[in-house]
Amino acid sequence: MPTGDYALTFACPDRPGIVAAITGALFKNDANILEAQHYTDSATDEFFARICFNFSDVDRIQQLRVRLSELASELQMQWTIRDLADRQRLLIMVSRMDHCLADLIYRWRTGELAVDIAGIISNHPRDTFQLHDLEEIPFNYLPILNDTKHVQEQEIWRIVKERKVDLVVLARYMQILSSDLSAKLFGRCINIHHSFLPGFKGARPYHQAHARGVKVIGATAHYVTEDLDEGPIIEQDVERISHYDTPEALVRKGRDIERRVLSRAVHWHVSARVLLNGRKTVVFRD
Amino acid sequence: MPTGDYALTFACPDRPGIVAAITGALFKNDANILEAQHYTDSATDEFFARICFNFSDVDRIQQLRVRLSELASELQMQWTIRDLADRQRLLIMVSRMDHCLADLIYRWRTGELAVDIAGIISNHPRDTFQLHDLEEIPFNYLPILNDTKHVQEQEIWRIVKERKVDLVVLARYMQILSSDLSAKLFGRCINIHHSFLPGFKGARPYHQAHARGVKVIGATAHYVTEDLDEGPIIEQDVERISHYDTPEALVRKGRDIERRVLSRAVHWHVSARVLLNGRKTVVFRD
Amino acid sequence: MPTGDYALTFACPDRPGIVAAITGALFKNDANILEAQHYTDSATDEFFARICFNFSDVDRIQQLRVRLSELASELQMQWTIRDLADRQRLLIMVSRMDHCLADLIYRWRTGELAVDIAGIISNHPRDTFQLHDLEEIPFNYLPILNDTKHVQEQEIWRIVKERKVDLVVLARYMQILSSDLSAKLFGRCINIHHSFLPGFKGARPYHQAHARGVKVIGATAHYVTEDLDEGPIIEQDVERISHYDTPEALVRKGRDIERRVLSRAVHWHVSARVLLNGRKTVVFRD
Amino acid sequence: MPTGDYALTFACPDRPGIVAAITGALFKNDANILEAQHYTDSATDEFFARICFNFSDVDRIQQLRVRLSELASELQMQWTIRDLADRQRLLIMVSRMDHCLADLIYRWRTGELAVDIAGIISNHPRDTFQLHDLEEIPFNYLPILNDTKHVQEQEIWRIVKERKVDLVVLARYMQILSSDLSAKLFGRCINIHHSFLPGFKGARPYHQAHARGVKVIGATAHYVTEDLDEGPIIEQDVERISHYDTPEALVRKGRDIERRVLSRAVHWHVSARVLLNGRKTVVFRD
Repeated sequence: MPTGDYALTFACPDRPGIVAAITGALFKNDANILEAQHYTDSATDEFFARICFNFSDVDRIQQLRVRLSELASELQMQWTIRDLADRQRLLIMVSRMDHCLADLIYRWRTGELAVDIAGIISNHPRDTFQLHDLEEIPFNYLPILNDTKHVQEQEIWRIVKERKVDLVVLARYMQILSSDLSAKLFGRCINIHHSFLPGFKGARPYHQAHARGVKVIGATAHYVTEDLDEGPIIEQDVERISHYDTPEALVRKGRDIERRVLSRAVHWHVSARVLLNGRKTVVFRD
Repeated sequence: MPTGDYALTFACPDRPGIVAAITGALFKNDANILEAQHYTDSATDEFFARICFNFSDVDRIQQLRVRLSELASELQMQWTIRDLADRQRLLIMVSRMDHCLADLIYRWRTGELAVDIAGIISNHPRDTFQLHDLEEIPFNYLPILNDTKHVQEQEIWRIVKERKVDLVVLARYMQILSSDLSAKLFGRCINIHHSFLPGFKGARPYHQAHARGVKVIGATAHYVTEDLDEGPIIEQDVERISHYDTPEALVRKGRDIERRVLSRAVHWHVSARVLLNGRKTVVFRD
Repeated sequence: MPTGDYALTFACPDRPGIVAAITGALFKNDANILEAQHYTDSATDEFFARICFNFSDVDRIQQLRVRLSELASELQMQWTIRDLADRQRLLIMVSRMDHCLADLIYRWRTGELAVDIAGIISNHPRDTFQLHDLEEIPFNYLPILNDTKHVQEQEIWRIVKERKVDLVVLARYMQILSSDLSAKLFGRCINIHHSFLPGFKGARPYHQAHARGVKVIGATAHYVTEDLDEGPIIEQDVERISHYDTPEALVRKGRDIERRVLSRAVHWHVSARVLLNGRKTVVFRD
Repeated sequence: MPTGDYALTFACPDRPGIVAAITGALFKNDANILEAQHYTDSATDEFFARICFNFSDVDRIQQLRVRLSELASELQMQWTIRDLADRQRLLIMVSRMDHCLADLIYRWRTGELAVDIAGIISNHPRDTFQLHDLEEIPFNYLPILNDTKHVQEQEIWRIVKERKVDLVVLARYMQILSSDLSAKLFGRCINIHHSFLPGFKGARPYHQAHARGVKVIGATAHYVTEDLDEGPIIEQDVERISHYDTPEALVRKGRDIERRVLSRAVHWHVSARVLLNGRKTVVFRD
């Protein structure tokens, strides 16, 4: 019986023979390739790939890892293998607006989002979310008062480490992370911005969109970096609007866009489909 | 036999009785309402409407105009009646990229775009467009050399007046109109900007989009104002892209978006479906 | 202080003077028009309108109703006035798949969907939905056994009458209503079909779509009629898919389409934005 | 200096080692992989791939072909290598509606569609298309009279062979090809159907869509098979419509969808991005 599925993702400077070397290593270890996507960024000559495979013999994974390590130094390759049956551990951070939280929880409960929820952190008290049945999920109320942001972020970081969090999701968390915490979480912290970036950065983007009279609104999921709203974009989506839409209607319609954009970004991240490419991402979509 | 269709568009401060007064005037003059859309901007309390109608007796149009003039001063109303059978006269301005020009010409030839083409102006010579059969359309090559922009724009303005141009379409015309000419053409000059404004203003927006790694690109048709890329937006549309798309691919995909966005904006403008509302537009779509 | 908003919707054979008569009646009763949309079906010469208004004096509503009744017989007009502050009473019917139920409940709790939930009926037991906090909502488990459909539907109808239900929403209710019940609920029962009708009628449409190799999938919200999957369509939406998508992935992606299509249809219905036009609908969208 | 780009596409029953074998062969012949996409159909266990590569030494292509032939019999592999600089030869067939023809011609002239146009065949006379500058393109007027379809198709087939046509594009050609000709052209004849298949098969689909009151219309590009409108789908796209749209408006809006759907399908086919998979296609999109 074959094993479950693994995803190998890697990036390295382009040169002949990369795929032959990697797939040769897979073949020699009896791995069976199920799906693969490769991409060369012609501007930087960087090669990116995601290869899904399984084994007939699970013991071969260690030998494969050894061989890939050798190839990695040869090819200057960054790589990772993820056992797709291993559930990533998510920490969800949220302020008052709970539609993205509710959506992630729903997808998690139904099994559509195959992760573990390591906890929820909010700068608002738990009864803000009393409509939701969060019973078994650890909840930390970490408010920010004058000059306490530093302390609050230490606590966040402690939780991330202690609970072995793989991915932090800012599900409409309306506080800006410090440069320090952004740097520590780089590549494993996703934010949903409620506009079609780079348009309407900053606060109240739907009100900005209304004032500008745009005909389409959108939302953007991106990795968090120290430059607010400038991190690598993972996913964007849009909806048409018209002059009939008040700012409140934009907020309402925006919620639907935000939750589907964020859930796709999280789904792709935990499926090892997103690779960083400088300020950008390579997304090997399903 | 009923007459052809007329479109009455008007805007005035909101108050009770506007529609009753206007439709009463239409009814007393034996006009038959075919289609109507109203809208009140709740932020400014301005009322906007478009009413399509025909007559059983064409002679009533003058009486209706008289009555509407009276109501206009009463209601502080801006209004216009357009006989939809009267073809608007278009002047198309273009630089080297001819996809929007080609598209407008095709739609005009097939009758889909029911206008007259009063002429084409380019800052590039006529043989730039030799692939297109422009035989009967007046073509003016108006290059801009050092310090000749003022002279060139005088010539444009002369053509606009002489040929009774109703609408100037900047169909990828890559020169910035002066404040003076923008002001003179306000509300009757449409530009296609090759980005999803307000993102990526200015030059080479597809290259900007590629560098930023966005996942959706777009185009924007707007009325030209002295503030470049800031005029009231008429229409926007988008397409999904991915990391596979080079800047050249974005330019290619963008051409398809640009031509459909521009043609819709022109179609709605000449059908009296677009009303100005400060920095924004009200578009009564079909 | 003005009253809350009312929506007048009506349909009648087209003729001159309809709008003048109606808006005259509104004006004489001191109603202030906020928004209006009219439409004439040129194939049938039927006129449709939705007019939103408020009063400075709430007592005028009775006089307006009297006047509209007179006009109705004159114009052969079907009409209704809805006080938009009056919450419509929804009965949600569901089988095992709970994503549309969960979505409606979430929108109701947050106030986005301004209705009352009169109850939930399922042909599956209550603990099917134990993930959801349905505490205060009446829940009826009405299974269908051999030959008991008739009895079950009597019970449904009893609940509809007893609880003064305005709208029945089939939120992935996988039983076919009888002709009799369909007829009784005509115009106030909305179903979500998990395909882009008229393609893929009947069972397992995502599996049909996968087998056919389509590149876009969709969902359809429609009024229920005795002809299954043939009722007047209110809303449809789609998403792009690819060969990578398994039938299970289509089901997963479809859930997102279904819930937004159904929630839009319900929102428009309860906002008096949907008028029946034979086999079709007129939707005056926001 | 590297050679131009080649695309290797292949399909074979899935088994371990396929990619290792193929990319090994590429590597041994000094080919450099630029981009690759693989896919296993889990329902049929068939493996599909597209690998783009170039050589430092053009002479290696023959050796590579020899090695791939050996692997092909080993792996029961169907394969083809296309030199992407070799222009595919297109034969366009058209009836009266010329929007798809015009679009293909425009994209060809601008170089966006990198093909050769081997000719145009119409069942309408050349002056049907006098608005278009077709000067240098061979044009055959092949009308169908009583009982002459057989003869007409023989002439089509003669032209296909004589002019070494790679791809026949039915660009709104409103005649049904015989089973015989469909079979001969299988996999190299693309049709644009003016509906979102499988909805609205057959004649006048926009009128059918209007009668049914759908809220979204679409178009479908597919390979031609003997079962009309049942061939493998390559691409589909849609646009939202409303009750305001007359059948004529649907036809107008549909033209825009048709031309972009057809041009994408042709673009992907000539870029060796489309592989047949039974009744379906695998499209490795750009």
